[in-house]
Amino acid sequence: MDKRERVTVLGLGRMGAALAGALLAAGHPTTVWNRSAAKAGDLVARGAVLAGTAAEAVRASEVVVVCVTDYDVAGDLLGPLAGELAGRALINLTSGSPEQARRSADWAAEHGIDYLDGTIMAVPQGIGQPGSVLLLSGSAEVHSGRKALIELWGDGDYLGADAGLSALYDLALLGVMWSTIASFLHGAALLGTEDVTAQQFLPKVERWLGAVASFLPGIAAQADSGDYATDVSGLDINVAGLDLLARVSRAQGIGTDVPAALHELYARRLAQGSANDGLASLIDTIRRG
Amino acid sequence: MDKRERVTVLGLGRMGAALAGALLAAGHPTTVWNRSAAKAGDLVARGAVLAGTAAEAVRASEVVVVCVTDYDVAGDLLGPLAGELAGRALINLTSGSPEQARRSADWAAEHGIDYLDGTIMAVPQGIGQPGSVLLLSGSAEVHSGRKALIELWGDGDYLGADAGLSALYDLALLGVMWSTIASFLHGAALLGTEDVTAQQFLPKVERWLGAVASFLPGIAAQADSGDYATDVSGLDINVAGLDLLARVSRAQGIGTDVPAALHELYARRLAQGSANDGLASLIDTIRRG
Repeated sequence: MDKRERVTVLGLGRMGAALAGALLAAGHPTTVWNRSAAKAGDLVARGAVLAGTAAEAVRASEVVVVCVTDYDVAGDLLGPLAGELAGRALINLTSGSPEQARRSADWAAEHGIDYLDGTIMAVPQGIGQPGSVLLLSGSAEVHSGRKALIELWGDGDYLGADAGLSALYDLALLGVMWSTIASFLHGAALLGTEDVTAQQFLPKVERWLGAVASFLPGIAAQADSGDYATDVSGLDINVAGLDLLARVSRAQGIGTDVPAALHELYARRLAQGSANDGLASLIDTIRRG
Repeated sequence: MDKRERVTVLGLGRMGAALAGALLAAGHPTTVWNRSAAKAGDLVARGAVLAGTAAEAVRASEVVVVCVTDYDVAGDLLGPLAGELAGRALINLTSGSPEQARRSADWAAEHGIDYLDGTIMAVPQGIGQPGSVLLLSGSAEVHSGRKALIELWGDGDYLGADAGLSALYDLALLGVMWSTIASFLHGAALLGTEDVTAQQFLPKVERWLGAVASFLPGIAAQADSGDYATDVSGLDINVAGLDLLARVSRAQGIGTDVPAALHELYARRLAQGSANDGLASLIDTIRRG
């Protein structure tokens, strides 16, 4: 069968529109629907069919993709469409919590809908570009059956049958992004007090992030084994370093939110453990809550 | 002149011993001194000369490297040696604050000592290995005159004549490391509640850190220009995401230190600015202190 599969996209925010655009570019007959039809203009000009109702949009294709603001919006939209969705593949790329994804999967199972949940680790402009990744969980059949379709958007990374996994990985990875960016900006603000620009700091950070990434395999192995002993960099000198970063930040007149919170956490771990434990031991303190 | 320059290393902790070891491996006549002479055994077996006193060690070479616990220890050690150090090059690789480095440089200038301050962005085992970097500031003459020597330890990155710069960059970069590692471990703890190991999480983080690094040039440009408008990822959805990360972390029974502190900071910026500002705008809030 050479003909491209019909696909329906519900929700045409920045991300939904990018997903539909990639389908059109690859020659898939694409039906779209959005609460406000005005957003469909561009896609219709590129060959998309604008459905009059969401139900009509669902009936047009065997694969339905939904990408809306949150799970509440998705639930309100999909709830009345259970009958139309039965027997079809539903790929939900809405962002939310693992619990919401699981409830959505349970609802789909009750109605005979093949459900794959996913999160997109890319900005809308990055869809279909190198580096775009989709974290997917739920129906293995939908994933394996629609691999080529998913690859139009990014590398599909199937995490398992538990539909909540993609949301959990998504949050864990976004946490790394928020944290890394905040600390980059903290460093830029600190150096800025001595007239160094963020763009001058940038190449040092890019080089250093490569080094930091090279520390992670050892840290991951220690986090999993619980054997935190190190002859490289003990907690004590890192706690002292964080204290110094907070004090120097204060002395230079900038905020201390990021280093102070990190110092508090690392120091608490030091109090619970040994000075010769490595940074990986922090996971024990985080696990304790 | 083919003969390798004589070098003296004061302080034989893990890092000082690694520095001296690299000098010996490259054929430099190396004189060492340490408060407790026992630590010199290995190096002496490899050809180092153990000086009886620090003053004797200084007199042995035109270049003196000091790498001790902190600037207080360095000050106590070097203070009485000002006469011996006059006219020589002093490379201080002790870690500390910019202020301490500047005071040390001022003291050196008063005594006619050519002073280069530096911090080592590597663990002792990484000295002389690819990826090892030395951030250097202070005397441009010492840096340019001893480039080959410094390259035995790592890539020498000269930041400017202000001796405090290397310590400031060091803290800014270490902040990125502490933050990135803490958020990696937070993510690993979060996924661990669903029986995903840190080592399973690792390849996703390694891939994702590449994506995060690719966001930094745009963020740096915005941080410098003050034009924070974005059509990619506004503050509002990121603040909502951080709130979700904190709530899901709590629901899964782990600590919320890292996401809660980040949420507080990003939310404060959102309250000060616009929902359509990008993440770079956070630097304004950090600068305000």
